[in-house]
Amino acid sequence: MHTRMNIAVVGCGTVGGATALHLIENADAIRTRYSIDIRLSAVVDKDLSRARRIGLPDALLSQDVEPVLSSPEIDVVIELVGGTGFAFTLIERALSAGKHVVTANKALLAHRGRELFAAAHAAGVSLAFEASCGGGVPIVRAIYDGLAGARFDAIYGIVNGTCNYILTQMIRRSISYDDALAEAQRDGLAEADPALDVGGHDSAHKIAIMAALAFGVRVDYDSIRVGGIDSLDLIDVQMAGRLGYVPKLLAIAERTASGLSLRVGPALVPQAHPLAWVSGPFNAVSVYSYPTGHTMYYGRGAGGSATAGAIVADVVSIAVGGYPAVFAAPGIWPDQTPAAQIADATQTARRFYVRALVDDRPGVLSELADHFGTHGISIAGMHQDEMADNGDALAPVVLITHRVVEANLADAVREIAALPEVAGRCTVLAIVDEPREALIDHA
Amino acid sequence: MHTRMNIAVVGCGTVGGATALHLIENADAIRTRYSIDIRLSAVVDKDLSRARRIGLPDALLSQDVEPVLSSPEIDVVIELVGGTGFAFTLIERALSAGKHVVTANKALLAHRGRELFAAAHAAGVSLAFEASCGGGVPIVRAIYDGLAGARFDAIYGIVNGTCNYILTQMIRRSISYDDALAEAQRDGLAEADPALDVGGHDSAHKIAIMAALAFGVRVDYDSIRVGGIDSLDLIDVQMAGRLGYVPKLLAIAERTASGLSLRVGPALVPQAHPLAWVSGPFNAVSVYSYPTGHTMYYGRGAGGSATAGAIVADVVSIAVGGYPAVFAAPGIWPDQTPAAQIADATQTARRFYVRALVDDRPGVLSELADHFGTHGISIAGMHQDEMADNGDALAPVVLITHRVVEANLADAVREIAALPEVAGRCTVLAIVDEPREALIDHA
Repeated sequence: MHTRMNIAVVGCGTVGGATALHLIENADAIRTRYSIDIRLSAVVDKDLSRARRIGLPDALLSQDVEPVLSSPEIDVVIELVGGTGFAFTLIERALSAGKHVVTANKALLAHRGRELFAAAHAAGVSLAFEASCGGGVPIVRAIYDGLAGARFDAIYGIVNGTCNYILTQMIRRSISYDDALAEAQRDGLAEADPALDVGGHDSAHKIAIMAALAFGVRVDYDSIRVGGIDSLDLIDVQMAGRLGYVPKLLAIAERTASGLSLRVGPALVPQAHPLAWVSGPFNAVSVYSYPTGHTMYYGRGAGGSATAGAIVADVVSIAVGGYPAVFAAPGIWPDQTPAAQIADATQTARRFYVRALVDDRPGVLSELADHFGTHGISIAGMHQDEMADNGDALAPVVLITHRVVEANLADAVREIAALPEVAGRCTVLAIVDEPREALIDHA
Repeated sequence: MHTRMNIAVVGCGTVGGATALHLIENADAIRTRYSIDIRLSAVVDKDLSRARRIGLPDALLSQDVEPVLSSPEIDVVIELVGGTGFAFTLIERALSAGKHVVTANKALLAHRGRELFAAAHAAGVSLAFEASCGGGVPIVRAIYDGLAGARFDAIYGIVNGTCNYILTQMIRRSISYDDALAEAQRDGLAEADPALDVGGHDSAHKIAIMAALAFGVRVDYDSIRVGGIDSLDLIDVQMAGRLGYVPKLLAIAERTASGLSLRVGPALVPQAHPLAWVSGPFNAVSVYSYPTGHTMYYGRGAGGSATAGAIVADVVSIAVGGYPAVFAAPGIWPDQTPAAQIADATQTARRFYVRALVDDRPGVLSELADHFGTHGISIAGMHQDEMADNGDALAPVVLITHRVVEANLADAVREIAALPEVAGRCTVLAIVDEPREALIDHA
């Protein structure tokens, strides 16, 4: 009378190992609670050293994935191989063989999700991916189920724990990006090659998935404007903090008059916004929807333990039939939805933080302001520290603009950077203000 | 080919009106996205003035609920009458008639949920209640679906927007409880009779529902220890703030060695905990589960608009079949789960804040410390302001204890309050420290 599901975990790294342990440890509790029998039947990896170290039963271990794919006994394949090569083939073959697939592979879904969702639909099985966005944070479900029936207006996500940890260290301890990265690498919180994280692409993969789901559109990955935190100067972290802002790597998807604006990059969040409080390796996603207003989802965005939680939740939802019921609805999955109309992210009006390093001479500030004025950019505030009388004649000057389109601002900033009294490049950071919540009025 | 659902809204107040508008406005978008036809077929209220004011079509309006209950055309009844009398009968009759029911009625579910879930199971229909806890925050789904397969360790909720708004005003503007309440009433953020909110019972209803769901047990409402914010002094809000704590009305359910501890009351949250940031009328629920660790869910806990969002999400989930799939699992619904083993909440070890108003005489502080020592209570910190030399000889003294069982502390506090140099009662507030997250190790 219990639904029985035999599970294969393919890829036994940090997440795969934690997932296998979770499946074994909690099988009894899951049976009691959901009346389903979830049984770990196979763990596959080329390198089984971790699987052995964490004590997974030898009888489950294999270096060969073929028996998993050909066995009619396996109901669900959990893909934790990573990458977009072998993982694609593996998932496609598993789906074609009539197996449900659960994956945490954000890069694969962002680049080739459409093909895989089509394959899942064709085979009448589920492709579930809660763990691909925000690790343990159930944000994927919030979008397709918790906010079902809502109109999505904006998603602002802190979805890369490595970046958020580095930024938190820079803010709290006034250390440079390079030093904070080196420490994060030493503490196992950043990869040896951190490019995917600090360059913004990991966050872009996640916003591609969330945006497709929320806005009911197909998102071409290349339509996302991607920047990272790797060029962020400590001086800007400090100046922003003193002006009431917290720098975050934000992944943004928002509805604008000209289409969907998709952007990843360092941005300043006002200290009063809940996203400003998210520190260390934690993730959080703010969703603005109508009529629910602002909701935010917070938790561990990475790590074996939290990610294993999200993966097993997908397995349970497939087994009880909850996920397949939603998955059958054609309008929210990116293989059957229309292509997104993409807005030019540089045309979105925002406030901006502009910082220049200038010669401390009379008249410099008004000269900067004049250049902005020429381009029709209105200055909301200006900040310059009192100079120490130590002969160092270069001073950072920060200008906060009123709402302006980034493309217009860029011209003014180029002019200013070319002035003889301005040293080096100017920093431009978007300020992300809270959107006005749309609520049902008079009701 | 589309599933069609005819909906009746019973009770057209703030939430009912918003729900009706949401169903009408977004029916097309829901059809596109989920391939279901959701049709508002009836709006019932004794008083139809709001329904007319917000422009609901006259043909839908009725003062009589009988046609809704007897019509085979109505698939879902949305109960927004409130209270535990007529609402109980209405839901029971609707379920018996084979209709799904969606409700936001926390008091009813906390007191008589078991009977209603049993009726729903007997009739093979759904009783959905996302809107009963945390308004628009999809916390109910997070528990039964997003964290499916997890072991729940603790739930800490700020689930009453009125209380959180009042506390935020006391903190930010240093005004008394009475003044903050009067303002909240004037601004429509507190009821004319605020007892259910400020006395803690509204929060207790919600923690009863969440705890039953998370811990898979039946919760007797009377087993919850309930306190409110109505006796909170401004002086304690201020002193706590200076010591790094934020006072919140917390609803707590946590697993202890002796059972499930259930408690609602004012408590101090360390400023570094995310719950400390939740201000104004917003709600947030922190969930500690294994292996996911800490997740938090944030949003508008009340108001027609956000609550309507949660209600319509339930309707969509019922229509696509997601909710019924989970609802069929017997182990998580409080009609079929075992009774909770309840721990004595006064036996939970915590740190505490104790404040006394004392004569500013030499030796008073050491006398207070002695009384704690006699009871084996260890003091972690003590705080007394420097006295102004204005003849006012009464000074507030704050002691922060190490972890201690509340029942033991109570004896010491009684003794101290009886000392001739202590004026009036002493304030005792629990300090809620973040539980250690359970994570899968070495994986």
